[in-house]
Amino acid sequence: MNSDAEFLGLESTGEPGRYRFVVEPHLARHDGYLYGGTAIAVSVAVAELVTERTTLWMTTQFVATSPPKEVISVHAEVLAPGRRTNQVRVTGTDSNGVTMFASLGATAHLRPQGLTGAFEKMPDVDPPEKSIPQTSPFQAMLRHAGIDYQVPEEVQRIGFTQVIEFREPTIHSHPDPGPGRSCFWVRRVDNEPISAAIAAFMADMVPMSVAHAAGSIGGGISLDNTIRAAEFDETRWILIDMRPHIAVGGYGHGSVFIWSQSGRLLAQAGQSCSLIQFSPEDFTAMAEAQS
Amino acid sequence: MNSDAEFLGLESTGEPGRYRFVVEPHLARHDGYLYGGTAIAVSVAVAELVTERTTLWMTTQFVATSPPKEVISVHAEVLAPGRRTNQVRVTGTDSNGVTMFASLGATAHLRPQGLTGAFEKMPDVDPPEKSIPQTSPFQAMLRHAGIDYQVPEEVQRIGFTQVIEFREPTIHSHPDPGPGRSCFWVRRVDNEPISAAIAAFMADMVPMSVAHAAGSIGGGISLDNTIRAAEFDETRWILIDMRPHIAVGGYGHGSVFIWSQSGRLLAQAGQSCSLIQFSPEDFTAMAEAQS
Repeated sequence: MNSDAEFLGLESTGEPGRYRFVVEPHLARHDGYLYGGTAIAVSVAVAELVTERTTLWMTTQFVATSPPKEVISVHAEVLAPGRRTNQVRVTGTDSNGVTMFASLGATAHLRPQGLTGAFEKMPDVDPPEKSIPQTSPFQAMLRHAGIDYQVPEEVQRIGFTQVIEFREPTIHSHPDPGPGRSCFWVRRVDNEPISAAIAAFMADMVPMSVAHAAGSIGGGISLDNTIRAAEFDETRWILIDMRPHIAVGGYGHGSVFIWSQSGRLLAQAGQSCSLIQFSPEDFTAMAEAQS
Repeated sequence: MNSDAEFLGLESTGEPGRYRFVVEPHLARHDGYLYGGTAIAVSVAVAELVTERTTLWMTTQFVATSPPKEVISVHAEVLAPGRRTNQVRVTGTDSNGVTMFASLGATAHLRPQGLTGAFEKMPDVDPPEKSIPQTSPFQAMLRHAGIDYQVPEEVQRIGFTQVIEFREPTIHSHPDPGPGRSCFWVRRVDNEPISAAIAAFMADMVPMSVAHAAGSIGGGISLDNTIRAAEFDETRWILIDMRPHIAVGGYGHGSVFIWSQSGRLLAQAGQSCSLIQFSPEDFTAMAEAQS
């Protein structure tokens, strides 16, 4: 059992390419339903298990979501089994056989002598030790907006934020400044090294950054999640460097660069979403719904 | 028949969601085989036809390619028919029923009062009128590398470059300078306005930009193509603003921003690819293969 499979509670069903997992609280959104970051993380993890290669890219389309404790069946198929590159498809269905998410991607054996290089610049930020602990990215967003509101304990305790530690660094300089640029240092609460799967799990923050860029407090319903990965090392902290691109008619698009603590570009992620404007009271309503 | 369907030679089969097209020379790569940009353009076009909405995002996975004159069947399915947003799947198969490409995406009715904004800066470049005509992006790449080699006429005349006009502007300043940043003004040779589908067709240039950033002359085999679109207007010229991100072990990732001539951000596109290093002689070999 590798670390990704453990984190995600992935179990083999015994049939080739077939797995399952349960929508446990740490794999859920703040409302307890299946979190989009879980769907892409599961897709990356099973693609790597089935092909025994590392992930190059993965796009996960969110078709529907599942209530707490639902059992999700996951099927990974190799559509084009190349010598180095495998094109794969991963589908997640609920216990009624309804599609929850559909993924396409590729895994590969990297070529030791192949072209290699990084063409982006990391923002100059404080290291995790000097950054401000945040209970959740929502809390940070409220602080940015100058709103003195504490996200209730009950909301913080449920969902994916219970297994991720967030710290917000001061940005001293940015290679491409603009509206909504923001950064978070994130790590697993258990302090295990971060893989491509778990980085994708953590990077599902574009909707918030687009809303922030548009001058609103909000988030959104992710329509998809894409990760394009380089080589992950033994990094425990990653920098989620958010680059919102555009909002149009209530929909948004943006990217995230994912950096190691030593400043290596590990991946680029992107998302489209349907934007939702929040008010602080929505968090109170969430807390009441869960009490 | 809308303009995209005409450009792509898309015909309805009479069954709902089912279309077909022929791999004509202008929908092919320089070797005459199905061009990746055609696959994403067809996916965007049929998703819009079936849902009667505009495209938000589309990811097309390239599973295999088809020889010249092959008939490709295209099937568009709505996986999640929301009131505004439709999550769709599009699959292209050859005459043997083998999958050539698989796409996931979403279309939507934009909300007139929805959040709207653009958070990226356009490079300061010369307008199309003052830019240097290029017979193909490959020719420009060779010029950048200081190689005095004319891509043979026979190669220029086949493939997608016969329906696209390319001009390379001088970049006066760039919001995020770095290796491999380059820009092309492109338009349809028939000078029709550019849609999201045709922009995706034109934006399939990431492999070249990644190779260029890594200091190599080359291109690559696209593994996928993703577009995240805002609203397209009546623009005839678009600026393809290439932002290569990273190369690792012979694979590459990068993005493209697509701008209108008036400086509006129309879309962001991204790709992963398996990199290939070219030599000028490869173009000669292509020309000979087609003579």
